[in-house]
Amino acid sequence: MESENSRRPLRQKVGDWIESERIQALIIAIIAFNALTLGLETSAYVMRHAGGILMWVETVILTVFVIEILLKLFAFRLGFFRSGWNVFDFIIVGIALIPASGPLAILRAFRILRILRLVTKVQRLRHLVESLLKALPSIGWIVVLMLMVFYIFGVMGTKLFGDSHPEYFGTLGATLYSLFQVMTLESWSESISRPVMATYSYAWIYFLSFVLITVFTVLNLFIGIIVNTMQEKHFEEEDLKRQAVEERAHEEREEMVRLLRQLDARMQRLENGSGTVTEGPGRD
Amino acid sequence: MESENSRRPLRQKVGDWIESERIQALIIAIIAFNALTLGLETSAYVMRHAGGILMWVETVILTVFVIEILLKLFAFRLGFFRSGWNVFDFIIVGIALIPASGPLAILRAFRILRILRLVTKVQRLRHLVESLLKALPSIGWIVVLMLMVFYIFGVMGTKLFGDSHPEYFGTLGATLYSLFQVMTLESWSESISRPVMATYSYAWIYFLSFVLITVFTVLNLFIGIIVNTMQEKHFEEEDLKRQAVEERAHEEREEMVRLLRQLDARMQRLENGSGTVTEGPGRD
Amino acid sequence: MESENSRRPLRQKVGDWIESERIQALIIAIIAFNALTLGLETSAYVMRHAGGILMWVETVILTVFVIEILLKLFAFRLGFFRSGWNVFDFIIVGIALIPASGPLAILRAFRILRILRLVTKVQRLRHLVESLLKALPSIGWIVVLMLMVFYIFGVMGTKLFGDSHPEYFGTLGATLYSLFQVMTLESWSESISRPVMATYSYAWIYFLSFVLITVFTVLNLFIGIIVNTMQEKHFEEEDLKRQAVEERAHEEREEMVRLLRQLDARMQRLENGSGTVTEGPGRD
Amino acid sequence: MESENSRRPLRQKVGDWIESERIQALIIAIIAFNALTLGLETSAYVMRHAGGILMWVETVILTVFVIEILLKLFAFRLGFFRSGWNVFDFIIVGIALIPASGPLAILRAFRILRILRLVTKVQRLRHLVESLLKALPSIGWIVVLMLMVFYIFGVMGTKLFGDSHPEYFGTLGATLYSLFQVMTLESWSESISRPVMATYSYAWIYFLSFVLITVFTVLNLFIGIIVNTMQEKHFEEEDLKRQAVEERAHEEREEMVRLLRQLDARMQRLENGSGTVTEGPGRD
Repeated sequence: MESENSRRPLRQKVGDWIESERIQALIIAIIAFNALTLGLETSAYVMRHAGGILMWVETVILTVFVIEILLKLFAFRLGFFRSGWNVFDFIIVGIALIPASGPLAILRAFRILRILRLVTKVQRLRHLVESLLKALPSIGWIVVLMLMVFYIFGVMGTKLFGDSHPEYFGTLGATLYSLFQVMTLESWSESISRPVMATYSYAWIYFLSFVLITVFTVLNLFIGIIVNTMQEKHFEEEDLKRQAVEERAHEEREEMVRLLRQLDARMQRLENGSGTVTEGPGRD
Repeated sequence: MESENSRRPLRQKVGDWIESERIQALIIAIIAFNALTLGLETSAYVMRHAGGILMWVETVILTVFVIEILLKLFAFRLGFFRSGWNVFDFIIVGIALIPASGPLAILRAFRILRILRLVTKVQRLRHLVESLLKALPSIGWIVVLMLMVFYIFGVMGTKLFGDSHPEYFGTLGATLYSLFQVMTLESWSESISRPVMATYSYAWIYFLSFVLITVFTVLNLFIGIIVNTMQEKHFEEEDLKRQAVEERAHEEREEMVRLLRQLDARMQRLENGSGTVTEGPGRD
Repeated sequence: MESENSRRPLRQKVGDWIESERIQALIIAIIAFNALTLGLETSAYVMRHAGGILMWVETVILTVFVIEILLKLFAFRLGFFRSGWNVFDFIIVGIALIPASGPLAILRAFRILRILRLVTKVQRLRHLVESLLKALPSIGWIVVLMLMVFYIFGVMGTKLFGDSHPEYFGTLGATLYSLFQVMTLESWSESISRPVMATYSYAWIYFLSFVLITVFTVLNLFIGIIVNTMQEKHFEEEDLKRQAVEERAHEEREEMVRLLRQLDARMQRLENGSGTVTEGPGRD
Repeated sequence: MESENSRRPLRQKVGDWIESERIQALIIAIIAFNALTLGLETSAYVMRHAGGILMWVETVILTVFVIEILLKLFAFRLGFFRSGWNVFDFIIVGIALIPASGPLAILRAFRILRILRLVTKVQRLRHLVESLLKALPSIGWIVVLMLMVFYIFGVMGTKLFGDSHPEYFGTLGATLYSLFQVMTLESWSESISRPVMATYSYAWIYFLSFVLITVFTVLNLFIGIIVNTMQEKHFEEEDLKRQAVEERAHEEREEMVRLLRQLDARMQRLENGSGTVTEGPGRD
């Protein structure tokens, strides 16, 4: 609509151009290509033979990303940061600009996070992620409860088994990690519970109750999400159907009531006026 | 409402004060702070440098908790014990008062259970726990069945494999623990079933049937809870909606029936009296 | 009703007596007590000190069970075998009568199966087991499919890895057991897949496809049972509610139609009559 | 219908014959028998004593399968390839014809895939597989998301841990396999995460976030299928019921409206013409 207006400011022109379908498709292709080159960088063989080219490609792609974001910043100014997805893009690209040397060398490994930008560009993926995130609040309090259970068993485990089994229960952090492992049921008995039971024979109470409580709670968390998803996804369309059916029924009933009222009115006129009707029955 | 009544007995004043929002918020804050200090106690480093302070803080907090419960006991007397949550609070605080020395030293580790008092104080958590507990009765008989399966396989396992594999099947207790491990599928084959099969080649029948039976039963227990939760959570509100729709439809139909009866009556009068109507149409 | 008839044959009297609530409650108590004594037999300590008594108790209890079944056979003759639960009882008790010596000594361990008789005696348990078994047919074909998947991967695995890893894939039976272990995800990678991959680097295709296929199939089996259970348990009562609502609506609508027809008839008579009464209006 | 036409071309006769119930039942029996002989081939004992016979049986059965497909190709020509199931049959039988020597010897193990032809022949199995496959598209985008998560963690893991733990994270392929193992929760902590954490203490962030993200995503994938299946299976029949109920209600309401309109018309005629009524409406 606004494209007719050829005298719109430069900022708007730039904004329209950068968000045009053609340019966005190009950016998506570049992100996908970047994912490939970052994957190739993990191969020692490829790095030996084509490391220089990959570095050069990386620089070019990063430049494109930076220019895209700069143009968007120019076009939309602070409005750019209003969308959570834009902020996400900004951080992802920003990480790549930090000189990754010394203790920050680890940040180089984070560049692959850039392919998450696909999620912000491809609508179907964005909707999917949004719907996954939407399920989170409904499980908020059950997560609080779970954290309390972890904290209680964490403090107890550290105090009870910390001295004898420092590898698994030495510090609160170590205990919490071990409890997470127990919750996933990974080697909970052979590597953790049985060795502890060899020292403290009563330890089975601690582990069995933790397993039962967390599995039961995770189960309920799970059920909470199922019930929620079913309500949202299914029953909305179910409701629409039912509403349509009910709407028709309601209209038909209203029509009937209207007709009945009309009949009743006619009838009453007839009853009241049947004496006077003889004179001049002209009214409708 | 009753706060206007300034001459209410001291007991009631104390009860109102201790249950006032301000005081309860303070107690919640103290519980959370206590959780933190109990967590810090697990750190050997912190205990070396600030152990004295932590012990002192612990004493102060415990005193506050004891005073709170004493005031409540004074205010509500035996009525205090009518609520399960109060009994729970009473026991949790009571444990901390037992002199934790000698064989009872283990009770010191139980002090962290105090943060469960948050559940009794924060309504959302209390409701959540209550709804979790409400799911339990519906699975009662399936748990009985499960216990029978465990007992049967427990006795059989002890008799069959007890002599050759005492670590896993030496006593009924050891076998039941091993069966619990098998049910969670943790190392059931590598650590338990395969070694036993090396001695008794037919043992796979025992383990496979146990795995299949318990997994199938747990699955059904699980489904029982899902079906139950869905019925409770979802269908109640669904029912309310449907009732509202049906209510309107019913009212409209009743209105129609009423109008029809009225019409019929008019009609009958007309039919019967249409001869006399001309004379004096005064009746309504 | 028939108890008034004091001259009913002896067989019927015996049948009524053995199935009376009092006798059945006694049998239930004896089964529970037997479960306890069979559990005690697993303890070497108890056997040393009270083994003789336990053997004697066992003989007495077995005698009671045999008498119960003999009386039932006398009372109901071959009709006794019409109920699957009776056949089950008969076999369970019968096993205990086989002289458990030599290669049959293993049957002694099966005596604990007797506590399953509780299921046949306690109605709630019987209903629960029946409802669990009722879920089985609905998963019949998916089990057939699963068996085919196991057979295919079993034959392939034995041919491909049998020579190099005889412990896990030496025979078709060994492979099927290993595949069951893989399906439960127990040490599938560390103990089975990784060692095989060390020999045959392509083996990951075999294991990943097996894991994905079986997990997906088990998932669908699971979903099949959920959907089935929900349809049966929930929607029946839902349907009843909806039918009640619809019934009322239908009756109200029928009443309206009846009234309308009546009105119409009255009206027609009025119209027809009002015309002939004066001029002679032939219109319908 | 067409069987009356005795002069139909040979191609059609052959097509009818090969697809006749009798011949197809025979083929099913041969497939099942072939499954048995292929299973027997895995036994070294059987191969020693009856290997020659099994080879001969194999040749005969393969010949039958080839003839069946050739006849079908003759009968339906390229139309044969229109059904996905036929293409599947063609490939399965084709594999067996490749001379399995040298590097292709592995194809001999694929002959057991032939029993999958049972799926194409038995309708119930075909329907089941089709319904399983139908559930796949609904999870398409969530699989794309999952692949992205695997790729991101794969590249990061290889860069971060590749040098210190080459067995698990040496190449991108090795890392992806290890991540799959972590996702199935198999020995994820004892064999993978703990050793890595011994080198890089921060590694728990990598593993915990991967476990939480994938478990949450798999959970949602799972829920997606449940919701989908329930909508399809259950609500269709539910909808049919509701439609039937609504249809009746609608018809009854339409009948009422029709009757009311008729009444109203009569009434209006009466009102308009009531001038003549006054004279003599005496009957009934």
